[in-house]
Amino acid sequence: MWNREIKLSIFGESHGNGIGAVLDNLPPGEEIDMEQLLAFLARRAPQNGKAGSTARTEADTPEILSGLLDGRTTGAPLCAIIRNTNTRSGDYGNISSLARPGHADFTGHIRYEGFNDVRGGGHFSGRLTAPLVFAGAVCGQILERRGIYTAVHILSIHGVQDTPFDTVHPDLQAAAEVKRKSFPVLDNRQGERMQVEIERARLGQNSVGGVVECMVTGVPAGIGSPMFEGMENDIASIVFGIPAVRGLEFGTGFAAAKLTGIEHNDGFYSEDGQVKTKTNHHGGILGGITSGMPIHFKVAFKPTASISLEQDTIDYKNNTNQKLVIKGRHDSCIVPRAVPVVEAAANIAVLSQLLQHHKG
Amino acid sequence: MWNREIKLSIFGESHGNGIGAVLDNLPPGEEIDMEQLLAFLARRAPQNGKAGSTARTEADTPEILSGLLDGRTTGAPLCAIIRNTNTRSGDYGNISSLARPGHADFTGHIRYEGFNDVRGGGHFSGRLTAPLVFAGAVCGQILERRGIYTAVHILSIHGVQDTPFDTVHPDLQAAAEVKRKSFPVLDNRQGERMQVEIERARLGQNSVGGVVECMVTGVPAGIGSPMFEGMENDIASIVFGIPAVRGLEFGTGFAAAKLTGIEHNDGFYSEDGQVKTKTNHHGGILGGITSGMPIHFKVAFKPTASISLEQDTIDYKNNTNQKLVIKGRHDSCIVPRAVPVVEAAANIAVLSQLLQHHKG
Amino acid sequence: MWNREIKLSIFGESHGNGIGAVLDNLPPGEEIDMEQLLAFLARRAPQNGKAGSTARTEADTPEILSGLLDGRTTGAPLCAIIRNTNTRSGDYGNISSLARPGHADFTGHIRYEGFNDVRGGGHFSGRLTAPLVFAGAVCGQILERRGIYTAVHILSIHGVQDTPFDTVHPDLQAAAEVKRKSFPVLDNRQGERMQVEIERARLGQNSVGGVVECMVTGVPAGIGSPMFEGMENDIASIVFGIPAVRGLEFGTGFAAAKLTGIEHNDGFYSEDGQVKTKTNHHGGILGGITSGMPIHFKVAFKPTASISLEQDTIDYKNNTNQKLVIKGRHDSCIVPRAVPVVEAAANIAVLSQLLQHHKG
Amino acid sequence: MWNREIKLSIFGESHGNGIGAVLDNLPPGEEIDMEQLLAFLARRAPQNGKAGSTARTEADTPEILSGLLDGRTTGAPLCAIIRNTNTRSGDYGNISSLARPGHADFTGHIRYEGFNDVRGGGHFSGRLTAPLVFAGAVCGQILERRGIYTAVHILSIHGVQDTPFDTVHPDLQAAAEVKRKSFPVLDNRQGERMQVEIERARLGQNSVGGVVECMVTGVPAGIGSPMFEGMENDIASIVFGIPAVRGLEFGTGFAAAKLTGIEHNDGFYSEDGQVKTKTNHHGGILGGITSGMPIHFKVAFKPTASISLEQDTIDYKNNTNQKLVIKGRHDSCIVPRAVPVVEAAANIAVLSQLLQHHKG
Repeated sequence: MWNREIKLSIFGESHGNGIGAVLDNLPPGEEIDMEQLLAFLARRAPQNGKAGSTARTEADTPEILSGLLDGRTTGAPLCAIIRNTNTRSGDYGNISSLARPGHADFTGHIRYEGFNDVRGGGHFSGRLTAPLVFAGAVCGQILERRGIYTAVHILSIHGVQDTPFDTVHPDLQAAAEVKRKSFPVLDNRQGERMQVEIERARLGQNSVGGVVECMVTGVPAGIGSPMFEGMENDIASIVFGIPAVRGLEFGTGFAAAKLTGIEHNDGFYSEDGQVKTKTNHHGGILGGITSGMPIHFKVAFKPTASISLEQDTIDYKNNTNQKLVIKGRHDSCIVPRAVPVVEAAANIAVLSQLLQHHKG
Repeated sequence: MWNREIKLSIFGESHGNGIGAVLDNLPPGEEIDMEQLLAFLARRAPQNGKAGSTARTEADTPEILSGLLDGRTTGAPLCAIIRNTNTRSGDYGNISSLARPGHADFTGHIRYEGFNDVRGGGHFSGRLTAPLVFAGAVCGQILERRGIYTAVHILSIHGVQDTPFDTVHPDLQAAAEVKRKSFPVLDNRQGERMQVEIERARLGQNSVGGVVECMVTGVPAGIGSPMFEGMENDIASIVFGIPAVRGLEFGTGFAAAKLTGIEHNDGFYSEDGQVKTKTNHHGGILGGITSGMPIHFKVAFKPTASISLEQDTIDYKNNTNQKLVIKGRHDSCIVPRAVPVVEAAANIAVLSQLLQHHKG
Repeated sequence: MWNREIKLSIFGESHGNGIGAVLDNLPPGEEIDMEQLLAFLARRAPQNGKAGSTARTEADTPEILSGLLDGRTTGAPLCAIIRNTNTRSGDYGNISSLARPGHADFTGHIRYEGFNDVRGGGHFSGRLTAPLVFAGAVCGQILERRGIYTAVHILSIHGVQDTPFDTVHPDLQAAAEVKRKSFPVLDNRQGERMQVEIERARLGQNSVGGVVECMVTGVPAGIGSPMFEGMENDIASIVFGIPAVRGLEFGTGFAAAKLTGIEHNDGFYSEDGQVKTKTNHHGGILGGITSGMPIHFKVAFKPTASISLEQDTIDYKNNTNQKLVIKGRHDSCIVPRAVPVVEAAANIAVLSQLLQHHKG
Repeated sequence: MWNREIKLSIFGESHGNGIGAVLDNLPPGEEIDMEQLLAFLARRAPQNGKAGSTARTEADTPEILSGLLDGRTTGAPLCAIIRNTNTRSGDYGNISSLARPGHADFTGHIRYEGFNDVRGGGHFSGRLTAPLVFAGAVCGQILERRGIYTAVHILSIHGVQDTPFDTVHPDLQAAAEVKRKSFPVLDNRQGERMQVEIERARLGQNSVGGVVECMVTGVPAGIGSPMFEGMENDIASIVFGIPAVRGLEFGTGFAAAKLTGIEHNDGFYSEDGQVKTKTNHHGGILGGITSGMPIHFKVAFKPTASISLEQDTIDYKNNTNQKLVIKGRHDSCIVPRAVPVVEAAANIAVLSQLLQHHKG
């Protein structure tokens, strides 16, 4: 459970009856546009033919059980469920006790004393990001009505770079357009190169990783708190819940470690009564509190753990050394589908912080 | 407040009566060696003459008010306070309403509606890491008694690299030694080069950033949870509470985004009944749960925001554009003093997760 | 959300698509007997012809979406949903903006700014106790396997008293039997008198209240904490979430205020290595921590707020004074159906405390 | 820790270095009048010669370490400590392993595995209510500035009744006056009778219990939430943290169980645009949410557990049956000193709920 001003319970296992989310503490009376919500969810859903995407297709249409009436939030907990329909458990039969490297098979087995549902990754499955995206889509609509907009794109895949966002003078139109693309990059030429990398990995029964960049504009200054309840901490505590995330950096991030103070410090200036900075190395957050500049962070994703090349592993039931070849349907790069998941994470964290400081 | 299995309240302002911490939910009966605890705290304290360190010296001796009897935890909340003694408020008089770039002066002013204590950074001061280190030192002693050991060192300063930890076959003796060094690096030659960088920054009235590397050995497999209650999330939610942190990566981190699956996946093998991996790209955590391999992460610190070069800023009380020259005592690089702070953060998060899963 | 060692999210509105619960942090591998679970739920369900019960009948069969595999908990969040099927909204049409006295219509309207679902009481409906009972039934099975047994009965209705439990030498067989009764009292003669009171109230278009007594046996000594995290606090924080609850007392409760110390103090003695008390005025809890004696508490329920007699009220939309006659189906006494709800509350609180102190 | 919108950590042991509280999440800029605060604390402090009060006297002057500057809250955690000065440990030497009936000696010993500080009751001591009162006094001043006023008095001692509050048309002047009395009752004649009861108990080396009544006026309608996050739940979760509390009832409470619906329901009416009820059986709360009528509740206190009469007990170290005579200084009735503690609990819970719904 994510346990802040907003509470988010995500439940479900990949091959169980269903998955879903309960969002607690949303303000009442917020309009939720279902079409827009489904469009957001569709960006995460696997697509046949889409670069890097698994062949498994699912309706993934959430059913809202509570918390919404006549298109508006009631203020009571909002619960949505998504049925698991297209579940070919057979594919996973032969790996039931061989730990897939890079997966939580072994660690989950120890943690849950052998009782966890291992089919399709169970509660560890990337499929659990669907309710996370649902929650983030709801929060995003509430934020947009307050003039807050979250932009995301693929920043790199296997080292191929997209143009980064301008986080000082953000181009909101470009940010809106990139979301509508089937392959969300600013520079389509680089996007094609990325897709070549993904296709090469797929053909080699291998996989590749990448980085997602996220920027949130329109957040007023003064949202957050120092130390453990800051904006970074809240974003981090969701982002590290996304499967395959290995790193998170705000503003200039790790590169800041190589700079000097005069290079990194963002000078303030006042223009038309608005306080701004000339650069945005600080990523819109100082002391855990927003500065009014766009919030900016990057998230590193490891290459998909499921690959069809032979790997060394153990049978975790009898502790013997084994060889493993994973069959089945897998994304050779999960980064394109991770883009809306990162957006969702940002939306949830930012709305939660906003509500904590300006009720309603 | 850090609000997990262990609850940690850190209070205080830089120039108030005192600072401190309340640690709730520690197991009873744990021996706490005060000498070892003070030695840990001393590693964070500013030292005259130490590279990059402010000239302000303080006793920084914590007084334990509760939760400890005859050298053992009682199980009741453990509270320690540290008096503020050496506070030369005068130095800060002239910047009371000029926002120092890279600091939380402006964001804190908005957040707290002008009522926050701005003297010496107030509640945002790096001085607040002293009670964090206290808490981490207590947790570290409890972990060590369970065979868990946290190793930390400076990995880089302004681009100068130390030898990284071997996170597959950790050298515990080297890890123990590096803590005792006044400048905690594995390769002293590189440490000298780092100190040259720091001194150059100081002479130029500038500052430099760096990276701290942390490794926790001896954590049993199976500690943690998927999604929002994982080991990474808990570590992240403290680490991003340390002032000046800009990035956090686990295992291979951002570099993983450039690898392929077969390069990044860590094959499992069984040896003497113990499950291990041949490499440790996963940083000891899979699906939010420990694998039994060392937990491994890196933390990026920006260059110290307080520099004496002239900077553009605003007066946040009348919103006018101004020039600022910061006087006073400042670290030209906070990374050396951040090393025990990162260790403390790891100790708190790991002990909290451990207690959540194995009471007592 | 109930936010302790166990986390419990209850969602749903009376006339929405469905209601349900998410239980987080259950131990893995616990067997859940579905038949026993349904039998528990049936005790709360409205029954035609049962004294005091509404005529609305529902299947109320929970569908488990996640967290259970092959009859055992997986350790992942357990979610169950119950569809709303038999919803005759028409009955409620005429009271949509007349505040029913004793109900949350007016307070909910202010709290949710007019956006809450008011049909059938919405999220305030007593129907929401069904997922609470589901959660308590699950927890109860986990407790029973550890030798902990929760006994409940109607202690009084409209002043007619049942025999109280013997909380020093509990009669476990009688406690088990009383649950199986359609009208759960120890003394059937008194039960008949209570039913006469209920029937009289029904005929008079009125309603009556009562008291439920609860006792939990087999809880080991040493579970709980002083001050805010005690056993009483946790029980109270759920019990006061049950609609219509007006009071809660532990052990001798309010009557203790009339006693002297020598009358109220329970002397300890040791027998066969077991520490016991000769009386149980303390209700099995001292300083927030269990003593090993049965936990004992009583819960006061007000008379059902929905009555068909004419009442003074306001139209909360235009703030005019009005007369109200409530039509529709209502329990003239909710106490019989509240009995398993109180049991559920006890189960959840006690299991949560137990897991907090003895993991697994 | 009390873990709601406001977070309250209370630490300390009766004979340790000090006790105190950390209050997190107070709004910034709130004026705190220290004189008024000390006057509040003085009402809880033991007084020589005061009916029922222990002879132990302490300065009990809190030192504020953080969170307050120039008489206003800064918004950072507010920490206050109180030194333990007058600690005659000798008195307790002979009972170190004899469990005092009605105390947490035995349960605490099991819970903390023998490591808890038992001197003077340790963390279980009634002395820990001093920081609770401190916190409540701070919250009370913040509430008063918003027109919210908490009234408390002794409702009964050993069966002798004071006049109850009028919770429909509250007499605020009488409520203010009763606080200033050294023996806080509305009817001084009854107060004298109560003091006779206390004195009789003292002479008999015995003790007596009683009931405290609390009313909070001026709380706007619409504050709270249904189920687990309601106003009752929050009040209960603090009230049951006060030592010696055995029962809590809202509005008509347990007596409601003997009423019919038409007797108990409070009809609404509108007057001058204000919604009111003609009676206040509901205690100002419906569905967990305030109605705008005064919040009203009663708290039952057991007779002081420390009595000097001989009692049966065990030595919890060797599990032998023993006789116990408690020496030392004890209140023969804690109810008079509990009055400001109940007020403090109400203040904390109500302010927390208010801030949750109307930030700032």
